Amino acid sequence: MGSMRMCVLALAALCVAVTPAAAQAPAQKPDVPVEKWAGKTILFIGAHADDDALSHGTLAMLQAHGNQVYILTLTTGNVGTQDPRLSRLQLADIRRQEELAALKDLGIPADHYINLGYDDGMLEFEDRKAVVENLVYWIRKLRPDVLFAWDPGKVYQRWHKADHRAAAYLAADAARAAMWRLLFEGQISQQGLKEFTIPEYMFYNDYDFQDENLWVGIGDFVEQRVNAGSHYTSQNGPGWNNYNPNPSEDEMKAMRALVRKTIRTREGKPVEGFRYYRGLPDGIGK
Amino acid sequence: MGSMRMCVLALAALCVAVTPAAAQAPAQKPDVPVEKWAGKTILFIGAHADDDALSHGTLAMLQAHGNQVYILTLTTGNVGTQDPRLSRLQLADIRRQEELAALKDLGIPADHYINLGYDDGMLEFEDRKAVVENLVYWIRKLRPDVLFAWDPGKVYQRWHKADHRAAAYLAADAARAAMWRLLFEGQISQQGLKEFTIPEYMFYNDYDFQDENLWVGIGDFVEQRVNAGSHYTSQNGPGWNNYNPNPSEDEMKAMRALVRKTIRTREGKPVEGFRYYRGLPDGIGK
Amino acid sequence: MGSMRMCVLALAALCVAVTPAAAQAPAQKPDVPVEKWAGKTILFIGAHADDDALSHGTLAMLQAHGNQVYILTLTTGNVGTQDPRLSRLQLADIRRQEELAALKDLGIPADHYINLGYDDGMLEFEDRKAVVENLVYWIRKLRPDVLFAWDPGKVYQRWHKADHRAAAYLAADAARAAMWRLLFEGQISQQGLKEFTIPEYMFYNDYDFQDENLWVGIGDFVEQRVNAGSHYTSQNGPGWNNYNPNPSEDEMKAMRALVRKTIRTREGKPVEGFRYYRGLPDGIGK
Amino acid sequence: MGSMRMCVLALAALCVAVTPAAAQAPAQKPDVPVEKWAGKTILFIGAHADDDALSHGTLAMLQAHGNQVYILTLTTGNVGTQDPRLSRLQLADIRRQEELAALKDLGIPADHYINLGYDDGMLEFEDRKAVVENLVYWIRKLRPDVLFAWDPGKVYQRWHKADHRAAAYLAADAARAAMWRLLFEGQISQQGLKEFTIPEYMFYNDYDFQDENLWVGIGDFVEQRVNAGSHYTSQNGPGWNNYNPNPSEDEMKAMRALVRKTIRTREGKPVEGFRYYRGLPDGIGK
Amino acid sequence: MGSMRMCVLALAALCVAVTPAAAQAPAQKPDVPVEKWAGKTILFIGAHADDDALSHGTLAMLQAHGNQVYILTLTTGNVGTQDPRLSRLQLADIRRQEELAALKDLGIPADHYINLGYDDGMLEFEDRKAVVENLVYWIRKLRPDVLFAWDPGKVYQRWHKADHRAAAYLAADAARAAMWRLLFEGQISQQGLKEFTIPEYMFYNDYDFQDENLWVGIGDFVEQRVNAGSHYTSQNGPGWNNYNPNPSEDEMKAMRALVRKTIRTREGKPVEGFRYYRGLPDGIGK
Amino acid sequence: MGSMRMCVLALAALCVAVTPAAAQAPAQKPDVPVEKWAGKTILFIGAHADDDALSHGTLAMLQAHGNQVYILTLTTGNVGTQDPRLSRLQLADIRRQEELAALKDLGIPADHYINLGYDDGMLEFEDRKAVVENLVYWIRKLRPDVLFAWDPGKVYQRWHKADHRAAAYLAADAARAAMWRLLFEGQISQQGLKEFTIPEYMFYNDYDFQDENLWVGIGDFVEQRVNAGSHYTSQNGPGWNNYNPNPSEDEMKAMRALVRKTIRTREGKPVEGFRYYRGLPDGIGK
Repeated sequence: MGSMRMCVLALAALCVAVTPAAAQAPAQKPDVPVEKWAGKTILFIGAHADDDALSHGTLAMLQAHGNQVYILTLTTGNVGTQDPRLSRLQLADIRRQEELAALKDLGIPADHYINLGYDDGMLEFEDRKAVVENLVYWIRKLRPDVLFAWDPGKVYQRWHKADHRAAAYLAADAARAAMWRLLFEGQISQQGLKEFTIPEYMFYNDYDFQDENLWVGIGDFVEQRVNAGSHYTSQNGPGWNNYNPNPSEDEMKAMRALVRKTIRTREGKPVEGFRYYRGLPDGIGK
Repeated sequence: MGSMRMCVLALAALCVAVTPAAAQAPAQKPDVPVEKWAGKTILFIGAHADDDALSHGTLAMLQAHGNQVYILTLTTGNVGTQDPRLSRLQLADIRRQEELAALKDLGIPADHYINLGYDDGMLEFEDRKAVVENLVYWIRKLRPDVLFAWDPGKVYQRWHKADHRAAAYLAADAARAAMWRLLFEGQISQQGLKEFTIPEYMFYNDYDFQDENLWVGIGDFVEQRVNAGSHYTSQNGPGWNNYNPNPSEDEMKAMRALVRKTIRTREGKPVEGFRYYRGLPDGIGK
Repeated sequence: MGSMRMCVLALAALCVAVTPAAAQAPAQKPDVPVEKWAGKTILFIGAHADDDALSHGTLAMLQAHGNQVYILTLTTGNVGTQDPRLSRLQLADIRRQEELAALKDLGIPADHYINLGYDDGMLEFEDRKAVVENLVYWIRKLRPDVLFAWDPGKVYQRWHKADHRAAAYLAADAARAAMWRLLFEGQISQQGLKEFTIPEYMFYNDYDFQDENLWVGIGDFVEQRVNAGSHYTSQNGPGWNNYNPNPSEDEMKAMRALVRKTIRTREGKPVEGFRYYRGLPDGIGK
Repeated sequence: MGSMRMCVLALAALCVAVTPAAAQAPAQKPDVPVEKWAGKTILFIGAHADDDALSHGTLAMLQAHGNQVYILTLTTGNVGTQDPRLSRLQLADIRRQEELAALKDLGIPADHYINLGYDDGMLEFEDRKAVVENLVYWIRKLRPDVLFAWDPGKVYQRWHKADHRAAAYLAADAARAAMWRLLFEGQISQQGLKEFTIPEYMFYNDYDFQDENLWVGIGDFVEQRVNAGSHYTSQNGPGWNNYNPNPSEDEMKAMRALVRKTIRTREGKPVEGFRYYRGLPDGIGK
Repeated sequence: MGSMRMCVLALAALCVAVTPAAAQAPAQKPDVPVEKWAGKTILFIGAHADDDALSHGTLAMLQAHGNQVYILTLTTGNVGTQDPRLSRLQLADIRRQEELAALKDLGIPADHYINLGYDDGMLEFEDRKAVVENLVYWIRKLRPDVLFAWDPGKVYQRWHKADHRAAAYLAADAARAAMWRLLFEGQISQQGLKEFTIPEYMFYNDYDFQDENLWVGIGDFVEQRVNAGSHYTSQNGPGWNNYNPNPSEDEMKAMRALVRKTIRTREGKPVEGFRYYRGLPDGIGK
Repeated sequence: MGSMRMCVLALAALCVAVTPAAAQAPAQKPDVPVEKWAGKTILFIGAHADDDALSHGTLAMLQAHGNQVYILTLTTGNVGTQDPRLSRLQLADIRRQEELAALKDLGIPADHYINLGYDDGMLEFEDRKAVVENLVYWIRKLRPDVLFAWDPGKVYQRWHKADHRAAAYLAADAARAAMWRLLFEGQISQQGLKEFTIPEYMFYNDYDFQDENLWVGIGDFVEQRVNAGSHYTSQNGPGWNNYNPNPSEDEMKAMRALVRKTIRTREGKPVEGFRYYRGLPDGIGK
């Protein structure tokens, strides 16, 4: 694991005779367009139930096209409310139900939802090695063809709020660690797993989309995204301050309208944007 | 605490139909110009006594205009000397006296100075959860309308030397944590505090001012800044190598001249620059 | 250790009357061109044996010109293989022999190779204070005129994969800590060392060379770099998957060709690029 | 802080010519019987509200006799219930009210109750240095003549369940640290505190009373203990499984009967037992 | 979770009118003799494959009598060899095979063997909260009627070598934590588990058997223990220095003889001794 | 590294047919009396300069008899003073000079004094793995035949004040770790060291000598001990409160008298007592 190998193996063409002005790698593209992916295993890592919301169109499309989508959420989301009546456990239960309802709308089966159970808002303070070890376990177990994760940054480390920051870096570190059979080797000798190298990555952000290089058309999946996103009533709309377990039809309509507004367009068409990367996990930031 | 809520609630306008080229949020501005602020509680968080020096004009102005300015310093500054005769405790005492003298010149009362007592140069190695908890305590106790802090970065994580890096990120993390009643809940159930959301932020830097979006005119407070800054004789001028507790009048004149040179101008007028941010603490880096 | 001193002492000219557009410091240059350096002590800090490979031309030149070059590697590199037959200890031994062979080709004596013995891939999880303390020890002991290290970033924190990220930041933090006699003072009172301030820095990267400001012509040392780099057969070429302790002459020829391709050129001449910095370690990111 | 000083200064008589069989120090006794103490400041450190319950008779007596008793509880007790309806915050509130009601019965003012707000059941996992620093703060602030704490053990380390284990050792470590002006020196240089050496100790246990050497007669304070202890209805009796905020008079009678049964006797008289120690905190285990 | 409840609920009889001389609880005994246990779920927690060896007779008996025995081993045992040819992974594989062979001889199915995969010799340095969380997971999942674990000590903390020390205390701490639904609540809200209180404990030691209070007659299971124990050839006999994957029949005979010698007797009969405890996990050390 | 091997290999005789009453191992004795040891390498590990004071007679004897004695002190002792004028660095310097003066009187060369430079009073809070790694380094480098260390306890964990507690357990853990070539393997692959098993141990205490099983007659070395011990003037006598770098002859006489009183006798003869242990480090507590 050193510098020269990366250059020799992965970027050889790039390394020759570059001048500083041209040193940045050309934007990467998948060999097969995302819209044509099939038969792939997809792992989405987020910090909270609803971190997947901005990618719901893409995830619905992938699941519909015969891929297996897994959603791994690091925390229970048991803190994020301004409703003074909710307890941690109540909120954790609510958010789980919201997520399962959303996944159902996306066509993703409930047993594809993995929640590691960490406390919301505290991920940054957990033992990083232990969290990485848990993520490596799931990467080696599911062996995803594609990882969706918060973008740890291109060239420079991206700023995220604390939980997202942890989720971004720990996912990248786990992708790296998973490929070495001599790391977390107890998983290999004792738990029937094998090392695994994730080949493709879709990094997502919730602001400043300058590093994006891939826009997935979600025209056929807008309604699924709208329906799925409307379940997060504890996090959006009036429920954030005053949670209502049984929203009225009008409230749900308002929720759907809110979600619909979050959909970005590009040349008039609804899209979801990502920073796509293909290659060894060591080069995720390149 | 997830991604979609941020988009839905806070940035809804921005999220619609953005194209990558326009994805960055427009520079934010305070509703009321800083020069007209009154009746606000201001909390300044720094790593060392004198981290406030580059903002002294603004702080003096705010205090003069009927705001309450509090200076919270994380470390005692007990390491930063090249004078071979000074011990840690001596230096800590000197720096406290320097800071109190500076605050006096700014009109800030001595009991508005809060020093958390960490060792200089070691903040990066303290338990981060414990430091954040201490900062959350003070945020919930003082309930500031505005937080001044080292800039953790816009979009990308800013580079700072170790103590400043810790101060920048831990302040941002504490601002985030303070708003949730289910985090550090012992402060709420046992210590009479309530959760609190800081609404406005003024981030400062000591180099590369590209991210600044707000310049405060300090014309009427230049002399206060010069006088206040001239007290840091253990950190600037000859005292860094050879501390003199009783500098001569000439030496103080030289100190004042040094401080005067640090004042930046903009269109010929003395200013202090900041990255202003208003919104939920989760979006500090946006 | 505060903000104002940095501005007053080191950047006074810069701090006066800057406007945001011009706020970035001008690219720094060494007083004496690197090609003329002599009699200097050079410390190279990397995470893995072969992190020095992209600087081999410069290092060979410096050693040839009468400087003393020391290579400090933090980890044993005992994880980075895809050959299923190699154990940690075998790989650590192989990588040590590869590095010593490379250094021999560069003219750097074997006893200038310092390996701190951490486990490959786990540096990010080691106690950071303990690693910094070890690096401070070597900085104070060798008292280098120049430090080569992974670039921690200019203005923004650079993204590196986990071990390189740790190596970049811990090296910068150690350079900072080494200068204060009141930090890690046991080294001073008990182990015969003195505080030391490294005056010059050469930061290296393996991708995105936009922050570089210095290109060292390595024309006379290309062959040494090619020969040295060809020893890393466990990391490049077929040995990564299938290590061969006795490569054939053809295989070595292929290795040399691979290395030769990694050499960058500028205006047709072979160069190695760096971000050069001179000044107090606190300003490394400026 | 070494071994010989302890022997020379504190135990000189003991160290001379001891034979192994007689090497254990004679049981210590206070110069003035506890029953006659007056004008002392007493600090009680426990892990949970109700850890003081087994010492309530003694604490009531001390407060009645003109001593100032402070109760410092490390955790909020927000976990210890088998009632499936209670949340963390509800339980923390309940336990605070129970403790304040108990203290009122003992004559101890509400502002003598200090709760550090840590999560119940997790104290063992908090950063130990940070907890010790907080305890040192309170020791230096209150400057107690006597410390009551869970017994860390005589000669051998005592077994306690996790929170009590942490409370026992951290209290002992804090008593030790508080006496050195060069430890946690930020409290001294910045927060107006001075180092302080606690001279006397009363260690308590909830089982195996073999190490006790002091029994305090609580005959006149039995009723206060019974009344005080009866408030802990969330922890004892039916409330542990099914908390009732408004217990009936019969239920309270049953609670009082339960508490009464916990009172130990010695030679027919109600007592509370302790391991008393006087001397430097370094010798607490001797 | 405080002191008084323990006394009131669990030890009320004991707490009344005790005198110090009689303060120690009477030796506990199971209601039903171990030899008659059936239908129970048994969880054995150890640090290394073969920590169960000294209890093999009892475990074989329990499995034969219709109980379900699970063996949870914390580490892979990948360090404990003096054979200079073995690597970590080879040793981990060998030890797993040895353990599975032993369990087969005991009648325990292979899928009752759970190995958490930690590195041998390093358990003491793992994040304790993360290890406890993992153990709590398994306790809540298997819901054992009886826990076998290294004895953390009676009244005083027992000395064990580093891994065993960690295993003893972390098992006790996990038993405690598992019973509270408000601890590690993510397991409950997200992973389908429920809090669980282990009612009975069998603590084992490998030296100084003074604290034992229960001896299980293993007369009918001696041969199973001898056969099972003879598989640990990498840890005993010549294999410790010179591992032989295919020991001769003579070598196996010698192994069996070695194991036979480790069997203790009491009144002429083969036994295995334990410290039995029944009650709340908080009182494990009582 | 498991339980059965220990029993089979090291304690086989003991394990057979023991009854609980006889389960404790017989007191161990060295094959050759300590008074006749020669040609051995002796490593003494303590937390503070002067932790060796109670063993000075034995150490002087061993050095005089042709053994090589090394004193390794973990901390600089830079906190232990009640003299309000001394700084950390001054005290560290003083204590180093005191120790070197003492060692000179014992005949131990100055370069046999190794100080790891940790801060006094903070050892308990250092990263334990890093400290153990440092101790393993010195054990593997010096390869001692005998280790002197604070007694971690026999059967039960001994109580020591914080630094001594850390020193006792970390020394025992380091002795254990040093013997495994697969632990801290970077020292072996990169730093020219080999695994090493310390065969004999002399554990010392400063109180409660019940566990001692070996008394070394120091009749011929009493004066050396008295002279050596008299140098610790910053820790004993008036210097603890009021350090005098140039004590008068009378003051030194008083110091010598103080030290003389600390010498224990047995059957009228001056002795130093130890708990002697021989065997694998895993059994240190047995």
